[in-house]
Amino acid sequence: MRISHTNRPLVVVTMGDPAGIGPEVIAGALSDPDVRGLADLIVVGDARVMLAAFESRGLPQPKVHDKQGSGSTVDLSDGRVLLMDPGIPLDNAEPGKPTREGAQKTLDCLDLASDIMKEGSGSGGRMALVTAPVNKEMISGVKPGFIGHTEYLRDRHEVDFVTMVLVGEKLRVVPVTRHIPLKDVSRELTGDLLMRTLMQVVDARVVICGRNEARIGVSALNPHGGEGGKIGKEDISVIKPTIDRARAVYPHIVGPIPADVIFHKAFNGGLDIVMAMYHDQGLAPFKMVEFETGVNMTIGLPYVRTSPDHGTAFDIAGKNIASSVSFKQAIKCAVKAVRQAV
Amino acid sequence: MRISHTNRPLVVVTMGDPAGIGPEVIAGALSDPDVRGLADLIVVGDARVMLAAFESRGLPQPKVHDKQGSGSTVDLSDGRVLLMDPGIPLDNAEPGKPTREGAQKTLDCLDLASDIMKEGSGSGGRMALVTAPVNKEMISGVKPGFIGHTEYLRDRHEVDFVTMVLVGEKLRVVPVTRHIPLKDVSRELTGDLLMRTLMQVVDARVVICGRNEARIGVSALNPHGGEGGKIGKEDISVIKPTIDRARAVYPHIVGPIPADVIFHKAFNGGLDIVMAMYHDQGLAPFKMVEFETGVNMTIGLPYVRTSPDHGTAFDIAGKNIASSVSFKQAIKCAVKAVRQAV
Repeated sequence: MRISHTNRPLVVVTMGDPAGIGPEVIAGALSDPDVRGLADLIVVGDARVMLAAFESRGLPQPKVHDKQGSGSTVDLSDGRVLLMDPGIPLDNAEPGKPTREGAQKTLDCLDLASDIMKEGSGSGGRMALVTAPVNKEMISGVKPGFIGHTEYLRDRHEVDFVTMVLVGEKLRVVPVTRHIPLKDVSRELTGDLLMRTLMQVVDARVVICGRNEARIGVSALNPHGGEGGKIGKEDISVIKPTIDRARAVYPHIVGPIPADVIFHKAFNGGLDIVMAMYHDQGLAPFKMVEFETGVNMTIGLPYVRTSPDHGTAFDIAGKNIASSVSFKQAIKCAVKAVRQAV
Repeated sequence: MRISHTNRPLVVVTMGDPAGIGPEVIAGALSDPDVRGLADLIVVGDARVMLAAFESRGLPQPKVHDKQGSGSTVDLSDGRVLLMDPGIPLDNAEPGKPTREGAQKTLDCLDLASDIMKEGSGSGGRMALVTAPVNKEMISGVKPGFIGHTEYLRDRHEVDFVTMVLVGEKLRVVPVTRHIPLKDVSRELTGDLLMRTLMQVVDARVVICGRNEARIGVSALNPHGGEGGKIGKEDISVIKPTIDRARAVYPHIVGPIPADVIFHKAFNGGLDIVMAMYHDQGLAPFKMVEFETGVNMTIGLPYVRTSPDHGTAFDIAGKNIASSVSFKQAIKCAVKAVRQAV
């Protein structure tokens, strides 16, 4: 498949679970002319579900391209949104009622979108992927072992390490360990993990914050940075030596800085990126002030991927009460990252 | 010693280490007529050091009461600051150069101040203690085993359990475990500790936030609250059952709420007090936005004690560059707490 598009960035959007709020927040985001004006847009989703969502928001009909033929050409140069359905429309897609068929369709959309990204990014295209939320339990019913977008895309693109970045208006935070019990953090936080994450962040620093000399701060693990080893040894034995090695590669890294200092510093513009040692250390301050403005970004894939900071929200799906603010932010952030990367 | 004072609250201030920034931030805070107007004030400190600090800030000379006789009467009814020195002035107190004599004097001041509090609070006086920073290493040189103000005052007043509260303009946060390595948090966070802390906070809720129906939120320990036990069991096995028991005593307690939700909620006015399970979970979000406005409060003593959110800062002491904002906040917070408690 060849894509003929304008000189704007190309953003590929996946529908997520058709029974969740994905379809309506996508339609909501694209009903904002400012968002539509940022990029050439492909929405990969169920045609019936997405057309209904577009209509309910009063959006102009998208062009529908329902053939997955690899020889075809897709023309985006007229600025209209292109809707691609990887299969046949769902018979039965009721908001709030996730089904096995819906989960399969979600996965098919993700596969098609990642194929488009693979082809396009190989040719040096300025492309980003924005994914609406999926339900991992539902998808693991049709694809055993499915954990989430991040790991799935990592494996599909055959990369062995990816990093999650939270990008907000004032803060950019990287949790080095992620969804693990708090008591396991000390064991999982190795010098190797921190080093790989730091190097991936250094490589992607311009994508993340637009600055070649991005100031990266590394948080301490223990209260007050461990007070010289009196309150935990990891800051001395793991974090400090890793920072010292990383600084030989990229000098603008500082730390370990106690967590109750580093976020104040970053929030007031003194740091561009904060490396948090575990989920809540980074997410609690981040979401406190970036709840609506924050976006998840994955770095380490062959392209930038962003997603809004919410889940499928089956309980409110179809009621047109879900806010599209976070999805708009995810698109804006993706476009900004693509532009910054150039 | 009898204290004759006005109907304003009585605030007793301790100097802290004479070589630190304590003397100058006290003088700086009291040079604000609005702060002086809030309370009757006793400063317990070295007469020579404090008089010099007062003079350098252009403050009116305080009355000096240098006799520790228990039969004397102290008259504060004229509204002037009273300076009390528990011994003889230091010969040699150079800013930035802590000494053993200075540490002994720091401790003598704390002892005298706590004696005043003990007598006064026993008679139902509306009193609070505000402490300037000490250096625990220096004091432990003259008083082995000294850990900090909180534990010292706890033992001096023979109470067996006290709680630290961080009081800011928008957030009030209680760290349930405090200065321990992160890897020990799961083990130290028992249902008993959480329950005792919750009950102490419930008892002091009006002092902390002025509301009889204060909404208390309890943070989860693990990312996303443990996702039903998949990411750590403590939220189910320890925190939830404790909250359920505590709610039988005081119903306005909610949780466990994931840390990346609870601070957003509190910051936007949806909760009055947040119980954080460990130091950085509470302090990182708190200090991010309350760095200058935040105050430490100790509850569980026979009176309210506050302190500014900084240390001795020997490196900048005596240069008159230390900000008095936090010390002013500590006095204001103490006065507000005393008024709220009535």
